[in-house]
Amino acid sequence: MPTSAALLDTIRSEVDRSLRGFLDRQRPLVSAPEIAPLVAAAEDFLSGGKRLRPAFCYWGWRGAGGGDDPALFTAAASLELLQASALAHDDVMDASDLRRGMPSAHRRFQAMHEKEGWSGSAEQFGENAAILLGNLLLVWSGEMWRTSGLPPAALAAAQPVYDHMRTELMCGQYLDLLEQVRGASTFDSALRVALFKSGKYSVEQPLRLGLVLAARGREPWIDRLCEEYGRNVGIAFQLRDDILGVFGDPAETGKPAGDDLREGKRTMLIARALAAASPTQAEEVRLTLGDPELERGGVDRLRRVIEETGALAACEKLIDDYLGQALRSLDDAPITPEARTALADLAVAATARRT
Amino acid sequence: MPTSAALLDTIRSEVDRSLRGFLDRQRPLVSAPEIAPLVAAAEDFLSGGKRLRPAFCYWGWRGAGGGDDPALFTAAASLELLQASALAHDDVMDASDLRRGMPSAHRRFQAMHEKEGWSGSAEQFGENAAILLGNLLLVWSGEMWRTSGLPPAALAAAQPVYDHMRTELMCGQYLDLLEQVRGASTFDSALRVALFKSGKYSVEQPLRLGLVLAARGREPWIDRLCEEYGRNVGIAFQLRDDILGVFGDPAETGKPAGDDLREGKRTMLIARALAAASPTQAEEVRLTLGDPELERGGVDRLRRVIEETGALAACEKLIDDYLGQALRSLDDAPITPEARTALADLAVAATARRT
Repeated sequence: MPTSAALLDTIRSEVDRSLRGFLDRQRPLVSAPEIAPLVAAAEDFLSGGKRLRPAFCYWGWRGAGGGDDPALFTAAASLELLQASALAHDDVMDASDLRRGMPSAHRRFQAMHEKEGWSGSAEQFGENAAILLGNLLLVWSGEMWRTSGLPPAALAAAQPVYDHMRTELMCGQYLDLLEQVRGASTFDSALRVALFKSGKYSVEQPLRLGLVLAARGREPWIDRLCEEYGRNVGIAFQLRDDILGVFGDPAETGKPAGDDLREGKRTMLIARALAAASPTQAEEVRLTLGDPELERGGVDRLRRVIEETGALAACEKLIDDYLGQALRSLDDAPITPEARTALADLAVAATARRT
Repeated sequence: MPTSAALLDTIRSEVDRSLRGFLDRQRPLVSAPEIAPLVAAAEDFLSGGKRLRPAFCYWGWRGAGGGDDPALFTAAASLELLQASALAHDDVMDASDLRRGMPSAHRRFQAMHEKEGWSGSAEQFGENAAILLGNLLLVWSGEMWRTSGLPPAALAAAQPVYDHMRTELMCGQYLDLLEQVRGASTFDSALRVALFKSGKYSVEQPLRLGLVLAARGREPWIDRLCEEYGRNVGIAFQLRDDILGVFGDPAETGKPAGDDLREGKRTMLIARALAAASPTQAEEVRLTLGDPELERGGVDRLRRVIEETGALAACEKLIDDYLGQALRSLDDAPITPEARTALADLAVAATARRT
């Protein structure tokens, strides 16, 4: 996919530049030298990533007639701060050790505590510092969005979308917690959680933000495109994420193999496997899913169940279906031809197999 | 103090009304019925409290010539959402069981998990839900502030103050974590943490927000008043909080007696006691401060050290001094006479002995 790869590269470098600029402006505001590790953690935590959310926002903006504007890149880049905040908190909540192949934020601060030989629990210090890092990234995301330099009328039009997205994200994460502890998840309930927690704020809402910013308001065709393209790409994206969480290469995911299985994530993939499992297979899942000590052998057995129940193939098929629907919805959308091509490429890039 | 009490009552009822209105507007946006406990927790968590921060904001606004305006109450009330967010996260970080005499947010969600008989760790569920509740309150605080209905020019003038306040709060909380684990705290370092973590965002910044909103900009006299009145009241307020955390009546503080001692808080009061302690007294502090199992006897012994070293009397004297400086700074400030009287009353109310 050279086209979308090149497009993403351009957007990525603009987004990176905006994020560096924002952090550089924050640094002098925080005068105490002890704060430096917090800002350094924010910086490292923001590096890397495919910048998909800013890309959807950017192509929404261009699709509705927006021109190339550094302010738009800044507003779009703020979505990465929001995402980084969610990841820092997620890793505390899931007790994850790794993020993008590096120590997660709480492990990083824990290691700092151990190295300095400070008193008290290093683990607790790490978690607390990561909660605060997540909070800082969260308030900075709103600030970067608002101070992007976009015209006030554009920002005012998009602000309700932005606010709704953030409320939805927090509530979706809470639904996800509930889903884990209530145990009995169906495909539909897993889908709902995936949509609220990730799908919407990964694709549909970033796209809507870009469209509404450029159009200076919400119009029926915008909501239609966001629902038909954005939601379907969001679901396919989440299904791909489910598959990567179980079968993904650690070099690609930055997480240990089968990490989602150890965390007991109730994904659409797992729901589909459980729905088709024999009693023996269901028992295998019950005994191993969510076991934090799960070894390679257990991961392999669970993977086999997911393949043998046909859940893996079914989810791959669903990804194709959702992607197909999304691509078809682009045909009639009154967006620029350039954006139509780019959004098609982006949808494929966001949901493609990584092998 | 009937005057300031009556003033606070009026402001409190307006603030309560604004908060109820805001939550009522949020509720339908979150369609899933399982979210109701999250909104209910937010509601309970926001009830009560003295609404001091909105009161400082209100009197800043009035002092710089602002009229009675429901929009200002809404903007000021948003400070309570920010404070509630900080408290929900603080209680997770400190593993506190109580807040205002009620279970803290994470204990509330933990109890819900236990009652429902869900799977997994109830304690972990409680902490994770409280992190998300704090995040929701944090994003709502920014939204309520922006959608208060104040004129865009006023909001634009005050926004940098608002953004700086939130960054300062997160960084101040991180400094507080550092202070606890590094152990060796001096009065000056404890003062710096108290200022960043609490003093500034309890008094100085709410006051500055009100003044800048009404004046539509930062003027030299505003910064002077905020530094001379706001900062001094903030420090005195925090010193009072230090004393209440050790000697306060649980019926008043809503926390078990001596809770700050069990948490090992490195307050100005403790720093002052350590600086004046004999080797035996210092050893007593070293052995008991921060012991989560500290019994009533240990609390009493630590209290005695704090009294016998003269730290209690010294801190009471400091409160008087800071308060005196704050009150004197009101004399020359170009604010309305009504605001001058109200701010004097508020300073006394925020720092007075509670016996």
